[in-house]
Amino acid sequence: MAERKADEIFKEFKEHSIAEFFKKNRQMLGYSGKVRSLVTIVHEYVTNSLDACEEAGILPSIKVSIKAEESEEKYRIIIEDNGPGIPKAYVGKALATILAGTKFNRYVQQRGQQGIGAAGCTLYAQITTGKPIHVASWTGTGDGFECDISIDTVKNRPVTNNVMDFKSQGRGLRIEGVFGDLKYENSEHGALEYLKRTALSNPHAEIIFVGPDNTESIFPRSTDIMPTRPAPTKPHPLGLSVNDLLEFAHLSKNTSISEFLLETFSRVSQNKVNEIRDAANDVDFKKQPKEMSWIDAEKIIKALKDIKWISPESTNIRPIGEEQIRKAMQNIFMPEFMHVIERKPRIFRGGIPFVVESAVSYGGGSGKKTDEGYSGTIMRFANRVPLLFDSGTCAISYAIKGMDWKRYNLDIEKDPVSIFVNVSSPHIPYSGVGKESIAQEDDIIDEIKLAVMEASRGVQRYVSGKMNLEHEANRYEIIMRYAKQLSRDLSSLTGKDQERIEGEIESLVESKFPKLKKKPEENSTQLEGLEK
Amino acid sequence: MAERKADEIFKEFKEHSIAEFFKKNRQMLGYSGKVRSLVTIVHEYVTNSLDACEEAGILPSIKVSIKAEESEEKYRIIIEDNGPGIPKAYVGKALATILAGTKFNRYVQQRGQQGIGAAGCTLYAQITTGKPIHVASWTGTGDGFECDISIDTVKNRPVTNNVMDFKSQGRGLRIEGVFGDLKYENSEHGALEYLKRTALSNPHAEIIFVGPDNTESIFPRSTDIMPTRPAPTKPHPLGLSVNDLLEFAHLSKNTSISEFLLETFSRVSQNKVNEIRDAANDVDFKKQPKEMSWIDAEKIIKALKDIKWISPESTNIRPIGEEQIRKAMQNIFMPEFMHVIERKPRIFRGGIPFVVESAVSYGGGSGKKTDEGYSGTIMRFANRVPLLFDSGTCAISYAIKGMDWKRYNLDIEKDPVSIFVNVSSPHIPYSGVGKESIAQEDDIIDEIKLAVMEASRGVQRYVSGKMNLEHEANRYEIIMRYAKQLSRDLSSLTGKDQERIEGEIESLVESKFPKLKKKPEENSTQLEGLEK
Repeated sequence: MAERKADEIFKEFKEHSIAEFFKKNRQMLGYSGKVRSLVTIVHEYVTNSLDACEEAGILPSIKVSIKAEESEEKYRIIIEDNGPGIPKAYVGKALATILAGTKFNRYVQQRGQQGIGAAGCTLYAQITTGKPIHVASWTGTGDGFECDISIDTVKNRPVTNNVMDFKSQGRGLRIEGVFGDLKYENSEHGALEYLKRTALSNPHAEIIFVGPDNTESIFPRSTDIMPTRPAPTKPHPLGLSVNDLLEFAHLSKNTSISEFLLETFSRVSQNKVNEIRDAANDVDFKKQPKEMSWIDAEKIIKALKDIKWISPESTNIRPIGEEQIRKAMQNIFMPEFMHVIERKPRIFRGGIPFVVESAVSYGGGSGKKTDEGYSGTIMRFANRVPLLFDSGTCAISYAIKGMDWKRYNLDIEKDPVSIFVNVSSPHIPYSGVGKESIAQEDDIIDEIKLAVMEASRGVQRYVSGKMNLEHEANRYEIIMRYAKQLSRDLSSLTGKDQERIEGEIESLVESKFPKLKKKPEENSTQLEGLEK
Repeated sequence: MAERKADEIFKEFKEHSIAEFFKKNRQMLGYSGKVRSLVTIVHEYVTNSLDACEEAGILPSIKVSIKAEESEEKYRIIIEDNGPGIPKAYVGKALATILAGTKFNRYVQQRGQQGIGAAGCTLYAQITTGKPIHVASWTGTGDGFECDISIDTVKNRPVTNNVMDFKSQGRGLRIEGVFGDLKYENSEHGALEYLKRTALSNPHAEIIFVGPDNTESIFPRSTDIMPTRPAPTKPHPLGLSVNDLLEFAHLSKNTSISEFLLETFSRVSQNKVNEIRDAANDVDFKKQPKEMSWIDAEKIIKALKDIKWISPESTNIRPIGEEQIRKAMQNIFMPEFMHVIERKPRIFRGGIPFVVESAVSYGGGSGKKTDEGYSGTIMRFANRVPLLFDSGTCAISYAIKGMDWKRYNLDIEKDPVSIFVNVSSPHIPYSGVGKESIAQEDDIIDEIKLAVMEASRGVQRYVSGKMNLEHEANRYEIIMRYAKQLSRDLSSLTGKDQERIEGEIESLVESKFPKLKKKPEENSTQLEGLEK
């Protein structure tokens, strides 16, 4: 075989767009498997609607409809919201350009981040049914429009067609698309479950779902209180890499490194700047941050790690809140008992704040009915977004499965228990692009364990009380059966009246089991959690 | 809180480059964890060198050097090959533009595919040490050059500096970079193991490794036969999606759909075209393929599935070959025994061909030494590239762990066994971007099982023989011990000479265990595999 020269080989050199890349690697966007692909579409659109409403300060009302199309594995999915809408000038790029959006580079907790989701849906419609998506948007300025949108994948650019204007004083967005290679399933991994959990973690949202069989499920708002928008904060020095620091420095307009550190990062006082300068003593803190070299940055980062810091602010985190979780759980599960925990902010990787919330509910609609009885359910959330897939790699599942559940009188394999965990952070460390699981960072795992343990202890008291009650009821019944036999025998032995003997034994036994004289409902201490 | 209008929100609208995206999501490129990140760098460069040599028809010689830098977790990694080099005009884009390369869209088995790997390394150097990579390239045309290359991440464009020309008649490529956030480990997940396995699956390559402790490991070529380049073939109709068919049609210059089908896909004869046309009877086969609609394409795809097809050609697959695997295994493990299997081409997803090769070796350097003895090793390969991570999700591990190993007299937890599996295909279905595991497609799992079972049966014969031998040796020893006692007792009972009695017993026993008279090495049938 003759050797080939580089010049000849490189004649075939080409560049590809990111849209071409994801077209070939759709599994990277969550489109792997028919059931998961359907939930991915619902997830992307609903997440965008919630984020948009929050940004605009609107209590969200979202309606999701899924209709089976004539051909197999194809579904028409329609999402309507009452959000701010998308201006005509941006609609193409927002829905049909991968890596375009409004949410980049903010150091604040939000659901979406990368400008991939909605454009990914458009791409998926295109490669599975060849159809554009149809969009209607009205932004409250009197004008509305609708149009068809698809992606020119070679250029990663939107193609907009059939634009029609209409008058509307309202605002909102409606997206309709036909998608293929899907399967609708009413399971733990299905769209309905996804929306149920979304409602749980977003009690301020109203969500309506119409399934392929035309049944409507409504998840009403359980609060009218709009969650406060998390405030973007300055990053904490301990969360920085050398590269991060340099990027901030090179974008800075400050006149000195001292001033730059003081103004760019949280918890940095003039005293701290002095400490850093002393620790990184051969870096010139008077020079412009633009001139900071990699070596300077390395020295500063090293100095930062040697200094004591106050924990980061957590005003850029917005957990759901104990009260709201309680209301939502009550709304959805109507459990016999539950216990809700909101932990204080913690940090991981030295400087990134996060908050864990957990709730454990028992009985009512908690857990899952199985052929043999019940099994427990773990409901995972990251920044209020339900995580339905990839539980095998998730910090939440890992923490929960690693607990010694016997200590809490609970069997998560067999009991009617629902375990809720929400991790909130401006930087959730997802383990993959699909954002379906949280990476197993030690600090996060520990904190989740503490939260779930605390919530479980609350439930344990109720379950133990219930078990004692059942246990005593059992003993009482056995003794009473024995009492009947005993009174019959005593009667025939002594010739005395059997009923009188039985009555005497009964009152004797009852005096030993006073609790059983009361009805369980009256036992208010054991149900305190529900009333809070 | 006041509502915000869409116009105001969308002022923040931005577009990001793919380089920015991967900068924030480096775990997607395999840079998650320090040990894995180091292997990812070695993997990307070595894969590129092997592919380049193969394309140019050159027997590869590759040298990888890893040196610890002064600061912690930083390493200097140098890769040199004797490949075709990269022309000056392309070097920036090839090494510092994500999604650029020569390997797109070919329907042929190759290691790299997406034009991400090498640019990802440049990006990783940049974000972990702030340094460009240094490249030297000489393409055999008399001129060579060297330069520094980094990525302008905002634009996803190369930045080339310090270009120097030099004269050289040879050809090759040398890349040197300093990378941070790494850890060198001499383990199953380390660079040395990666290269050892690369040598195993590429017996035509010479690979030299110099580790941080300056020890040199050489994996010599075990064959001088250049693997035949797999020929790109036409795709098989059963592997097509509607979208694929449409894309082919819209790029086609044929004048009719009939002609297009006949010329574009494999196994399509005029008779087959007629069959397709009859099955998709309202599609006009005379119109230009450019005018094929989505609905036409859907009908044709449906028709394709209703027709009987000959299996796809497999000339675009190039397995390693039984002989070559045997030589390489012998070279590296020097096992007591091994059995190598190359299976025939099969197809998955209806139309994508693949070939499985497997080898099982026993003893010698097979398996892994542990404190308690040994444990078996599974060596996974896809298109000759070793897979070291994510075994939990891989079809190869799944198939092997699902086998009933007792049937083969092997215990993969405790025996000195190495199990080699290589899956070759123009389209390996990787489960993630990191390309570290093969998705669990049923057809592929079944075929892997059959291959490993066949190889294991070969080894079983040897192991059983060995076990029988050991078993008989044990019995012989016990009887002989007993014989000594017996002869002593008989001697004192009868007064006859003890030694004579013992001698008689011995010859009696030996006549019952004739095999033990021979030395095991002479038992040629049990070692046949090695000689083949």
